[in-house]
Amino acid sequence: MVEPIELSDALERLNAYLENNDLESAVAYLRTLHPADRAELLSELEPEQQAAIIEHLHVTELAEVFEQLDEEDMADVAQHLDVEELAEVLDEMEPDMAADLLGELEPEQAAEVLEQMEEPADVASLMNYAPDTAGGIMTAPPPSLRRFWTVAEALCFIKQHYAQEEDFYYLYVLDRYGRLIGLVSLKALILAEPEQTIEEIMNRKVIWVHADADQEEVAQILQRYDLVALPVVDNERRLIGVVTIDDVVDVIEEEATEDMYKLAQMSPDSEIYSPIPESVRNRLPWLIVNLGTAFLASSVVALFEGTIAQAAVLAAFMPVVAGQGGNAGTQTMTIIVRSLALKEIEPRDTFWAIWHEARVGIINGVALGILVALIAWFWKGNPYLGLVIGLAMTGNLFVAALAGVTVPMVLKLLRADPALASSIFVTTFTDVGGFFLFLGLASYFLRYLR
Amino acid sequence: MVEPIELSDALERLNAYLENNDLESAVAYLRTLHPADRAELLSELEPEQQAAIIEHLHVTELAEVFEQLDEEDMADVAQHLDVEELAEVLDEMEPDMAADLLGELEPEQAAEVLEQMEEPADVASLMNYAPDTAGGIMTAPPPSLRRFWTVAEALCFIKQHYAQEEDFYYLYVLDRYGRLIGLVSLKALILAEPEQTIEEIMNRKVIWVHADADQEEVAQILQRYDLVALPVVDNERRLIGVVTIDDVVDVIEEEATEDMYKLAQMSPDSEIYSPIPESVRNRLPWLIVNLGTAFLASSVVALFEGTIAQAAVLAAFMPVVAGQGGNAGTQTMTIIVRSLALKEIEPRDTFWAIWHEARVGIINGVALGILVALIAWFWKGNPYLGLVIGLAMTGNLFVAALAGVTVPMVLKLLRADPALASSIFVTTFTDVGGFFLFLGLASYFLRYLR
Repeated sequence: MVEPIELSDALERLNAYLENNDLESAVAYLRTLHPADRAELLSELEPEQQAAIIEHLHVTELAEVFEQLDEEDMADVAQHLDVEELAEVLDEMEPDMAADLLGELEPEQAAEVLEQMEEPADVASLMNYAPDTAGGIMTAPPPSLRRFWTVAEALCFIKQHYAQEEDFYYLYVLDRYGRLIGLVSLKALILAEPEQTIEEIMNRKVIWVHADADQEEVAQILQRYDLVALPVVDNERRLIGVVTIDDVVDVIEEEATEDMYKLAQMSPDSEIYSPIPESVRNRLPWLIVNLGTAFLASSVVALFEGTIAQAAVLAAFMPVVAGQGGNAGTQTMTIIVRSLALKEIEPRDTFWAIWHEARVGIINGVALGILVALIAWFWKGNPYLGLVIGLAMTGNLFVAALAGVTVPMVLKLLRADPALASSIFVTTFTDVGGFFLFLGLASYFLRYLR
Repeated sequence: MVEPIELSDALERLNAYLENNDLESAVAYLRTLHPADRAELLSELEPEQQAAIIEHLHVTELAEVFEQLDEEDMADVAQHLDVEELAEVLDEMEPDMAADLLGELEPEQAAEVLEQMEEPADVASLMNYAPDTAGGIMTAPPPSLRRFWTVAEALCFIKQHYAQEEDFYYLYVLDRYGRLIGLVSLKALILAEPEQTIEEIMNRKVIWVHADADQEEVAQILQRYDLVALPVVDNERRLIGVVTIDDVVDVIEEEATEDMYKLAQMSPDSEIYSPIPESVRNRLPWLIVNLGTAFLASSVVALFEGTIAQAAVLAAFMPVVAGQGGNAGTQTMTIIVRSLALKEIEPRDTFWAIWHEARVGIINGVALGILVALIAWFWKGNPYLGLVIGLAMTGNLFVAALAGVTVPMVLKLLRADPALASSIFVTTFTDVGGFFLFLGLASYFLRYLR
């Protein structure tokens, strides 16, 4: 019985051993932990400490550790091993994880390691697929059943071939050409009588994907049909791999993170632990693009410099109108981008969404418009100022609703990523719209504002 | 062999039948589909069409449909059934889904339905847990094994008790008090010899959670240890339920959506299909809070009205400085909020993160500062204007880095949700900071700007 450990406590204990140079106790303590925790702790250590501990671990233990690390930590830990050691470890690893690890190395180094491996075939073939496709996240296909076998024969086959496999949940049935024709759950196998044939108990309605299917689509299929594994086939429908739910969970989390970062206008590859130059590269270009749009907004303001010179009070309210438009536009845009990602809406729902969001925008706009008008009136004692800012606010929230729906929908229709550039366009619309409406109305009512 | 269907094509075909009033073909077509697709299509129909189709489905088919619907759609579809029918359907459903459905009904209605059910015990006990805890997402415990059974006896027991269960992957071993003492994977059971005892093949290192564990924590544990199911225990460590990976996938997606919506400053419950009054309620209060902070920024501008009256050109550049600060602050805040959610960083990393982000902020600030200074200089022909705006930009990106780290970290330390209010505070800092730096410097250099 184990309760999940607190990683920070475990790290403290491990560090205490290491500070006393008691490497043996440190290794012994790590061995008491779940491989996932062992890997997590190892990745938190300084490189020299990692190297010292890794020297004390067996090949199978190292393989377990690598299987639990994320790709960047894999590469960090791998650099403590020489080519022969790494090849040995990779031979022990699940092929998909081994392929991921090799993908993190320099191409020449990866080739050297592959050459040293005893069973490089599975791993090498997995390395041919783009990392964000079904092929890129699948693992090698498990030993498969034939339909004319009896359940007793199948059980015998499993005892021979599956002892070394990871936990598995479905068995696949192939025809003589290696084409997928059915699926047997372990439950069905256990419930069946020994003399039944696989054909009798197999489920013919297997859901599968092609190797080039996008990982996001794979995630959605596993989720929609509540599966724990999904077979991957080639163009002849031959079974070439399996995507398991644990990979999919990572994909779902990764895709959500990427969308969040894109909405915040930075590279989807951003990570808090990126080195400074990389962080700058992930963010500065977006800020520069934004600067361009900011100057577009500023040139609208510049058009009205004469008005502002005559009524400097306007300068204080300008950012309120534009900012609220930006906030409302971000609300609409975010809900559209997320609903598109979750397939809750599609571009054909654009008119419905505009109609929905425009009404919300107008209601919010009128409410905020009245509020801000009253504040401006009482603060500056001028009802016309209130009128101008109230009208501009209402109008800009309408602009925000239109832009918030239209921009991501148009990007989606153009097969671009709606999360990627929506923020920039939406805030450009609300800034330009806000300044134009507010300062335009102010110019019209100028003689009442001075 | 089935390829996942295109839902939009299927919906078109279904609608074609319904428009011809060919209800039988519509139902027959639905029966050819996977229950998940059947449910999805049904939830897309108009209420009258739903009611017509539901009348033609058997109780078990209805139970399958309900198990695939999300909670709100469940409630919509359920209203077509009377209390007796609903009780029958609920008896056929997985207890956790049945409890979720009852949770969506009015309390009196739920009580009536429970009374009519044949086996209300499992469902009623599941309804006692808060929906966002392990107890709220778990389902009733499966029939369990005893450690002194042989594998042959266990297989016999499974054949008797599991035929009606959903797919399952692990079997749990309990002691005489119902306490969890081990776990047997189906793989281990199949690989074992018939005369071995369960005790010999069981894994004693079972990872479990308490019923009141937060669903986010549950998701992280399943993910960390690559599990497909996690047992839930009470205070005496008695097995009271199991959380399966499919529920967890939904939790991960839901939590990401909520964080995105909170970062965009709207209610985490927002949905694109919310009725207008609800959409307004989900967004207007956040806009009003923002209005308050916008006026705080505006009162900073008001302090410098005299300066602006003398150099109206400043008004055009004000939003550039504040806006870029807001963008940079949002970048930092988003990466901090997301890294906190994924447990990649913790509040104890605050100083490290400030040091990291401050350097990124200063580099970006200097780069943007120089760029914007040059633009201002060439556009308005005044190098001092360039100097003022360049310095203010650099300073404000530093403010953005500090606020972007500190605000979510402080919220986390106060046990508040970092996603919830960070945006408001961060943009307040960057607006106030930007206006103050820019207009303050401008006042100092005023005679060179006129």
